[in-house]
Amino acid sequence: MSSKLGKYTYRMDNPPSVLAYAAIGSKKESEGPLASYFDIINEDTTFGEKSWEKAESRLQKDAVNKALSKIQLSTGDIDCVFAGDLLNQCIGATFGLREMGIPFVGIYGACSNMAEGLALSALMVDGGAMKKTIAVTSSHFCTAERQYRFPLEYGGQRPLTAQWTVTGSGAAIVGERVSPPYIKAVTLGCIEDLGIKDANNMGAAMAPAAAATIKRFFEDTCTVPDNYDLILTGDLGQVGSDLLHQLLEREGYHLGKKQADCGLLIYDRETQDVHAGGSGCGCSASVLCSYILPAVKDGRIKNMLFVATGALLSPTSVQQGESIPGIAHLIHLSADDDTKTRPSTAGGM
Amino acid sequence: MSSKLGKYTYRMDNPPSVLAYAAIGSKKESEGPLASYFDIINEDTTFGEKSWEKAESRLQKDAVNKALSKIQLSTGDIDCVFAGDLLNQCIGATFGLREMGIPFVGIYGACSNMAEGLALSALMVDGGAMKKTIAVTSSHFCTAERQYRFPLEYGGQRPLTAQWTVTGSGAAIVGERVSPPYIKAVTLGCIEDLGIKDANNMGAAMAPAAAATIKRFFEDTCTVPDNYDLILTGDLGQVGSDLLHQLLEREGYHLGKKQADCGLLIYDRETQDVHAGGSGCGCSASVLCSYILPAVKDGRIKNMLFVATGALLSPTSVQQGESIPGIAHLIHLSADDDTKTRPSTAGGM
Repeated sequence: MSSKLGKYTYRMDNPPSVLAYAAIGSKKESEGPLASYFDIINEDTTFGEKSWEKAESRLQKDAVNKALSKIQLSTGDIDCVFAGDLLNQCIGATFGLREMGIPFVGIYGACSNMAEGLALSALMVDGGAMKKTIAVTSSHFCTAERQYRFPLEYGGQRPLTAQWTVTGSGAAIVGERVSPPYIKAVTLGCIEDLGIKDANNMGAAMAPAAAATIKRFFEDTCTVPDNYDLILTGDLGQVGSDLLHQLLEREGYHLGKKQADCGLLIYDRETQDVHAGGSGCGCSASVLCSYILPAVKDGRIKNMLFVATGALLSPTSVQQGESIPGIAHLIHLSADDDTKTRPSTAGGM
Repeated sequence: MSSKLGKYTYRMDNPPSVLAYAAIGSKKESEGPLASYFDIINEDTTFGEKSWEKAESRLQKDAVNKALSKIQLSTGDIDCVFAGDLLNQCIGATFGLREMGIPFVGIYGACSNMAEGLALSALMVDGGAMKKTIAVTSSHFCTAERQYRFPLEYGGQRPLTAQWTVTGSGAAIVGERVSPPYIKAVTLGCIEDLGIKDANNMGAAMAPAAAATIKRFFEDTCTVPDNYDLILTGDLGQVGSDLLHQLLEREGYHLGKKQADCGLLIYDRETQDVHAGGSGCGCSASVLCSYILPAVKDGRIKNMLFVATGALLSPTSVQQGESIPGIAHLIHLSADDDTKTRPSTAGGM
């Protein structure tokens, strides 16, 4: 079972493994620097489906099937899937996975979904109730644009703080400890809202949540940024990443070059016209499941924090003049299974 | 920790308690048969707020605060809140709870939210990771009508299969075993979709999911309807309840008078013009947290199943001609803590 460390962090007594993972992208992602790490790239953004929403559902279904196939598991081997997305009523997940017959727990944490699903997976597997779970989420540029902003055909100008919604999905299968990547700890986030109201500046709205969760993890574990090879935020983009550094600096934590952001890794901002970077549930999920997890698996990254961030706005809340609440959940991933040697309360978990 | 029983059911080794609960309703609920069981009834459906959405957020906030106050707990005593609702991007939950500073796990199971939140709560508490959690959800007639169907002002005619969205909320605090009600087991549902496309007939869309989950629970636990005092479904209404009886009869399970439905308990169909009954996340949540849990607490109900059902449609999926997937999660509630005497694999859990 997991032990609570401090006020917000759960340390896994038997760190679960990420047994398999898969990432899917589309045309824009195929033109970015991480293209070769994706399992499936379909340059047709409809994925052969009749609507963008059906295409997004297809993304989740294909990601789950691809991850299962890598370790020759079938849907019947999975105790539970934790799935969600950005669409109203989460139809990306529910319609994508409805025929699979896996016990289904719908989640909604906006772009923090992948960390939320991994956190629930790790707690359930380490708690002993479940043997194998899947965390999956997705986003699609066209479903997100027409739902959150304008009809695609409107062609509105995007400010420089805007991010580009990733058309992609990532799925990860979590199971009992066998080999790296291990999930060593998770920190569940609280909602943070510092009053940002600009729906074209998600990075600024989410940065305070990322800062709060990272700070709480450091406090709970008595560690500092230098204890980790990488602190990977979800999709703060350039604006949000800069703010995160400033916010944590004030708290005495210097991130320096330890921090990277999924929204900045997935696209080339110089050539791809994405402005502040990538975003969407599928952004951090696909970057984690393509480029990052293999590096933890083979030890190139020994110790890292995955901090997926979500902006909990809706078009209605924006129209009603509300500010944008943010949330961030954190997953401590490691190549080392040092549960027997680690100190019980501090340092180098 | 929880042990898996059969393929879908988790039996709690140390059945968590529902430590406190609160239910809130509004005008329509105050005219129904359960009015006197609610903790707070506010006949002003705006709850003093400037929009229906803000009113729904207020419902969740008030329900959580009321439940906490009953056992003199503060938000700082809670490890995690599992919260969601029917609104796009779940803003009922996120805006209602954003100032509370409780680690927040957003869930989306449509009207099955209360069972989903209780299931996650029970698994986390029995697994030892968490000590105290809250499950909360809500619905509001006006937010639901304008989001799912028409602007309220349109005044469209409602067919007889339609249900009336409850303006209400229920919150339950789950903690380590102290006294009844105990959560003895949970069964997580799979998505079921038999092709129903009528968005004004939620009961028919959800009945197959309820039947599947109840059947799986009976199989996993080797029990039958007669082992329980009450099998309480979420909000199938009259149409869905009739279908549930038929579907389970085919499988050899005779529900008879054991079954009741939250959507039929909360309103008087003769006098309140609600057609097939009540619905919405707040329906099963408020009925459970007002009328039912006190009866389990004082032993009038010894052994019961709470089966909240959700219709996973969205307005977009309906417009695109999709059928309506359903889901149901099940919670086994009991007045008796017979963990020491129960047989290990069968009967009278």
